[in-house]
Amino acid sequence: MRALRWDGARLALERDVPEPRPARGEALVRVHLAGICRTDLEITRGYLGFRGTPGHEWVGHVVSADDATLVGARVVGEINLACGQCGACAAGLGRHCPTRRVLGIVGADGGFADLIAVPAANLHRVPDRLPDREAVFAEPLAAAFEILEQVPSPAGARAVVLGDGKLGLLVAQVLSRAGADVLLVGRHEPKLALARSLGLRTETPEAGADLVVDATGAPEGLGQAFALVRPRGTIVLKTTVAAAHRVDLAPAVINEVTVVGSRCGRFPPALAALAGGEVSVAPLINAVYPLDDAVSAFAHAAARGTLKVLVNAQA
Amino acid sequence: MRALRWDGARLALERDVPEPRPARGEALVRVHLAGICRTDLEITRGYLGFRGTPGHEWVGHVVSADDATLVGARVVGEINLACGQCGACAAGLGRHCPTRRVLGIVGADGGFADLIAVPAANLHRVPDRLPDREAVFAEPLAAAFEILEQVPSPAGARAVVLGDGKLGLLVAQVLSRAGADVLLVGRHEPKLALARSLGLRTETPEAGADLVVDATGAPEGLGQAFALVRPRGTIVLKTTVAAAHRVDLAPAVINEVTVVGSRCGRFPPALAALAGGEVSVAPLINAVYPLDDAVSAFAHAAARGTLKVLVNAQA
Repeated sequence: MRALRWDGARLALERDVPEPRPARGEALVRVHLAGICRTDLEITRGYLGFRGTPGHEWVGHVVSADDATLVGARVVGEINLACGQCGACAAGLGRHCPTRRVLGIVGADGGFADLIAVPAANLHRVPDRLPDREAVFAEPLAAAFEILEQVPSPAGARAVVLGDGKLGLLVAQVLSRAGADVLLVGRHEPKLALARSLGLRTETPEAGADLVVDATGAPEGLGQAFALVRPRGTIVLKTTVAAAHRVDLAPAVINEVTVVGSRCGRFPPALAALAGGEVSVAPLINAVYPLDDAVSAFAHAAARGTLKVLVNAQA
Repeated sequence: MRALRWDGARLALERDVPEPRPARGEALVRVHLAGICRTDLEITRGYLGFRGTPGHEWVGHVVSADDATLVGARVVGEINLACGQCGACAAGLGRHCPTRRVLGIVGADGGFADLIAVPAANLHRVPDRLPDREAVFAEPLAAAFEILEQVPSPAGARAVVLGDGKLGLLVAQVLSRAGADVLLVGRHEPKLALARSLGLRTETPEAGADLVVDATGAPEGLGQAFALVRPRGTIVLKTTVAAAHRVDLAPAVINEVTVVGSRCGRFPPALAALAGGEVSVAPLINAVYPLDDAVSAFAHAAARGTLKVLVNAQA
């Protein structure tokens, strides 16, 4: 089969990659579409030392599974492959299982390929009315919904989302739908114009926000967040910056700010929001490349100003 | 009157300092005892650019006040001098008033003096059975109790307190009394022995704590806390390190850790705990110096291994 492979130095589409052999409990999924995430770009810069097939945002259909009723189902899948045995797993937090593998990120091949093996327990059926090109956003949108699991209800809160990238646009929509008064802060006028077309406000925020989400992906984001959040307010940190950076945390203590690290989320709220048309994702798509041109797709995704680039494994 | 003055370069006891003239709403308090805090030592290294009389941990009696029933009362006092008009003040968070002065720290003379002027609203009567040398711990103990206002009940939680200094010993006791399973981590065997004599455990902690409090006062504390806290756990940051320092916050995001900055607290729970003998503070006192020797008291407080040094303004 075809798969986009990263060997630590070079990204290349290979055509004779062995098909994955599903382990017990795993389903084999034929990939339709896969999305390129910032983390994929970081992987090609060495993040987490990953080797293999990246791709953790994908939609496809089940080719084989222990449960025959799954075969043929159109699915998306949660990306953390948990042990199922440890305390974190028992607490329903498999995405924090200490020995987890992560599809396309840690120790498991991902979705820029014709086929992918995924634990059946990780799969979620895609509602019929939801097209592939929207369903493929389930994973990043789940990461946005994760915030609602971690902080008190933002209804009525003055919220600021820092970063006009994909994640910022999703987070801002999720917080708006949850009743927050949201301002999106970014540096790219075309993205800000898109944000406004999605009903988001992009005025310059004043200090005193109840909630600030750092989705900048940049080391400066946290400092900006401290400047905007009110005393006793909350900052949600979505940015993983590979290298340690210089941060003055004295404002956190003096102003008793709470900083909440936030990563992956559960898929069901994201799928429901997509199916209900509560969040707009299609306008974020800049291009769709055939799997054969996945290397070009990565170059496009890395270009300044790009939002979402998809890879079509059926083309 | 006498007052210990810091002019930005030199700490000196002066004997002819004008007595404070209480503004409307302020009481004049004759100081009995005042404690030297780490923040006082930081002030003599330039922290916050303070000039004047330091000292924000004190106990005394009221000499004059608008409310005559206060005169003669033995009191301690909250240190944030709030405007009383702004949104923070209206929300009962005068200690986050943006234009506040802070006794002995920001724009207001503190307690290493014969007399101090304090808003009467900031004063709390000291229960008769509580001696001065314990009441003087109300302020730092309130900072320890503040944690209970900020995080969910720690009852049953596996907690680690990093730092065997004054604040660490108080925080560990407060969390223990609140039902947490607490380990205190420190580097000074005499302080650890004291901790054990107070009923605290000092074994080496394993990773996986629900709650970690950084009371190290050192830039390394936060990194240690990240290594010990479980995914989705909470770190309370009590350390204000004057300079920005290099921190890798990726673990906060990946493990979805919540970092809560924590500073001053309300006095009533602290006074109640002291009066009820729930927290031991007297064993933390290393020395009491007369006010005339306050400069020596600061030198003693700054020496390695010292816990609390008090200054006696009645001697």
